[in-house]
Amino acid sequence: MKNTEKTMDKIVALCKNRGFVFPGSEIYGGLANTWDYGPLGAELKKNIKNAWWKKFVQENPYNVGLDAAILMNPQTWVASGHLSGFSDPLMDCRECHERFRADKLIEDWCAETGFELPKPVDAFSQAEMKDFIEEHNIPCPTCGKHNFTDIRQFNLMFKTFQGVTEDAKNTVYLRPETAQGIFVNFNNVQRTTRKKLPFGIGQIGKSFRNEITPGNFIFRVREFEQMELEFFCKPGTDLEWFNYWRTFCHNWLLSIGLKDENLRLRDHDPEELCFYSKATTDFEFLFPFGWGELWGVADRTDYDLTQHQNTSGQKMVYREGEGKDMVEYIPYVIEPSLGVERSVLAVLCDAYDEEVVGQDKNGKDDVRVVMHFHPALAPFKAAILPLSKKEVLSGPAMELYNELSKEFMVDYDETGSIGKRYRRQDEIGTPFCITLDFETVGDENTPADHCVTIRERDTMNQVRIPIDQVKSYLEEKIKF
Amino acid sequence: MKNTEKTMDKIVALCKNRGFVFPGSEIYGGLANTWDYGPLGAELKKNIKNAWWKKFVQENPYNVGLDAAILMNPQTWVASGHLSGFSDPLMDCRECHERFRADKLIEDWCAETGFELPKPVDAFSQAEMKDFIEEHNIPCPTCGKHNFTDIRQFNLMFKTFQGVTEDAKNTVYLRPETAQGIFVNFNNVQRTTRKKLPFGIGQIGKSFRNEITPGNFIFRVREFEQMELEFFCKPGTDLEWFNYWRTFCHNWLLSIGLKDENLRLRDHDPEELCFYSKATTDFEFLFPFGWGELWGVADRTDYDLTQHQNTSGQKMVYREGEGKDMVEYIPYVIEPSLGVERSVLAVLCDAYDEEVVGQDKNGKDDVRVVMHFHPALAPFKAAILPLSKKEVLSGPAMELYNELSKEFMVDYDETGSIGKRYRRQDEIGTPFCITLDFETVGDENTPADHCVTIRERDTMNQVRIPIDQVKSYLEEKIKF
Repeated sequence: MKNTEKTMDKIVALCKNRGFVFPGSEIYGGLANTWDYGPLGAELKKNIKNAWWKKFVQENPYNVGLDAAILMNPQTWVASGHLSGFSDPLMDCRECHERFRADKLIEDWCAETGFELPKPVDAFSQAEMKDFIEEHNIPCPTCGKHNFTDIRQFNLMFKTFQGVTEDAKNTVYLRPETAQGIFVNFNNVQRTTRKKLPFGIGQIGKSFRNEITPGNFIFRVREFEQMELEFFCKPGTDLEWFNYWRTFCHNWLLSIGLKDENLRLRDHDPEELCFYSKATTDFEFLFPFGWGELWGVADRTDYDLTQHQNTSGQKMVYREGEGKDMVEYIPYVIEPSLGVERSVLAVLCDAYDEEVVGQDKNGKDDVRVVMHFHPALAPFKAAILPLSKKEVLSGPAMELYNELSKEFMVDYDETGSIGKRYRRQDEIGTPFCITLDFETVGDENTPADHCVTIRERDTMNQVRIPIDQVKSYLEEKIKF
Repeated sequence: MKNTEKTMDKIVALCKNRGFVFPGSEIYGGLANTWDYGPLGAELKKNIKNAWWKKFVQENPYNVGLDAAILMNPQTWVASGHLSGFSDPLMDCRECHERFRADKLIEDWCAETGFELPKPVDAFSQAEMKDFIEEHNIPCPTCGKHNFTDIRQFNLMFKTFQGVTEDAKNTVYLRPETAQGIFVNFNNVQRTTRKKLPFGIGQIGKSFRNEITPGNFIFRVREFEQMELEFFCKPGTDLEWFNYWRTFCHNWLLSIGLKDENLRLRDHDPEELCFYSKATTDFEFLFPFGWGELWGVADRTDYDLTQHQNTSGQKMVYREGEGKDMVEYIPYVIEPSLGVERSVLAVLCDAYDEEVVGQDKNGKDDVRVVMHFHPALAPFKAAILPLSKKEVLSGPAMELYNELSKEFMVDYDETGSIGKRYRRQDEIGTPFCITLDFETVGDENTPADHCVTIRERDTMNQVRIPIDQVKSYLEEKIKF
């Protein structure tokens, strides 16, 4: 029997072999932990982003969209705290010159030894981490010695220079999160949309973090995309809206087809919360390498807008009422923040399946690899497979391609046996295969039936329907 | 009479006041020449990108998509020539310390004096530029003196550091064009899609250029998006395909609603061509500040793939035929490369109009500002305007909002007179306004007619149709 376990190796190999994800700059030996999305991966990623935008912006009467620049005035990062506080605690081994993140070192040592920390390592100060490592005599994972340097903070923002000279005056940063582009535009958006509280601003865009230890394929990368909503509401209504978005996000993950048993919602304990946050929930997904964070939903109170008000000197307030009854206050904000690449990876892992569909002539299991993507996320919605390359079939097949591709992505394949072509489409998650055969077009003895066979990916059931009903049949099935 | 001339000032003001485009990081005094796209601008930009992807990737049987990383292995820029040759010729005035681009200085001086250059300034060497400036005694535009430094080349790539140390080993660049992400993936894409020549790879993504003199609103910016196709074909068929894409691109610009009289196709003269290019056409648009380049279509021969083959040592070839009849060769490439922000600006400028629609009671012209966007590009496809805020109308109006917003972006507005609301929608280019009135819902004396009034933006014509036909009516009208 074949090993049908779902492993990262298999998923990475499928991604590479089928054109979902390639190592970045591969012909030059790559560039550490960058990834390029191939024809199928680009579609999958786009479909996930569109599914988010549709439910969080287009259909949602509270929310509007935004698309802010990656390069921002550096004062933004003074206000947000990224310039002073967005850093990893690094230490070197003086013996073997390997470099480590102190918090990771402690976490890994605890996992190995079964030691239970009194509080999460995120809550340790730099001095506490150093003391802990010395007290427990944690060795260098590479050489086993005990001779670490002091811990020093390494800022995770990528820096660059705008203008001719490479000096402090011209230093700008690649944004480490999209959220700040929303906060600095709070007044602009509120003024131009004339929105009343509560309302939200959604954004999808790239962010960059100079992570020391990226890894797990596309799970932790230096260049990534975020789908963030900042939802502004009246102080006092914030916990109600926090719960609203917590449920909304959970339902969205289920709606794109993720299995509930692979999801867990982890509410932060009071001591784990950031000092400004009233409530935070991490949505975690069960990847083949273990549970990993997908989505954070946080009640950030008025922290961000207050910081920007203090740093910029501009009022960041909402005005309620009119005339002498007018009151102004800084809104509270609920932030659901989701990573695009992590969503792609979760969808890939959740969809991957190996199914025994019979025995071959030697009695060995016949296994098909199938990606059970939600039809709205599948790179191709349908594949058109004329039974023969002959013009009599490829003509009407291309006509059908032209009709359907106006509405959604369609593949066209006329090479190899029909069975092989089905397997190929299963492996890239195409929900519907459409076969044109000689009955479709008829010949001098048999009248054309003008029908095609549609085979459904998951059930492998086949139906025969008139060719002029294919479009509406599929549109009904792939609705999101 | 009002001045109805179309000016950049008016367009920039409308963009800012209606939420199309805001200055980036505005609360901090901005960051030179960065721009944030507000709720309407984000939709417009997304719609333009979707319109490109639909026609260049989704519907086109030759082409597939890609989404490569912004950070690439620096060898990429050795191969492409960007590391050695992608620079601006800069000089300083020794008197006032202002910095200038030598080529711009010459161009501006020629424009002012009417001097006719023997060849385009792009074709000048650095020494020729210096000689020309001295020979014609061109003064510093700021202080009027004649004391320039030598010209030195300033590389336009933004550089940053990946990893902990800021040294040459860790230096990486923000890509100055998306094209190279396609070239380095030629083998990966060809292998996984099993495409035969000719085929193309399309990509939309951000690029960065550290321009010394950005300007003209969003026309020339440091951070921008590109929509690029690299179309690979057999050498010898390249000029045929060049013409195919030249026509295709022209038709696409017309299909998104740009007026042909605002477009011109400028074929490069032989001496203007890059040394590797066999043919290049610039598509230019007549902006309020003059003709500006929108789209470049170029026959780049086998230059790029050859460069990567030589630099990486990997074969970048296409194999035709089988067995001993197999031949391999480096394909030629046709590159249509279009800027997203420039397309947004062209669409904004082309759509902007001020129309005298009557006289007010003082006999003065009543002017409406209207954005004649193609319905496929308009941020909102429709606005739902209940005649009153009363629940009896807002109830069914919100029901209609919920139904339509599943299909496309819809605005909802119940504030102010219906005339004012129409004008507001005209100004943001909403093609259809849907009014619900008391006849729609009826009362104890009059039965409901279950109809709404749809007012068309450009003609201002109104039709009354059953509410359950609105969705299909609009879908028919906004098809692209």
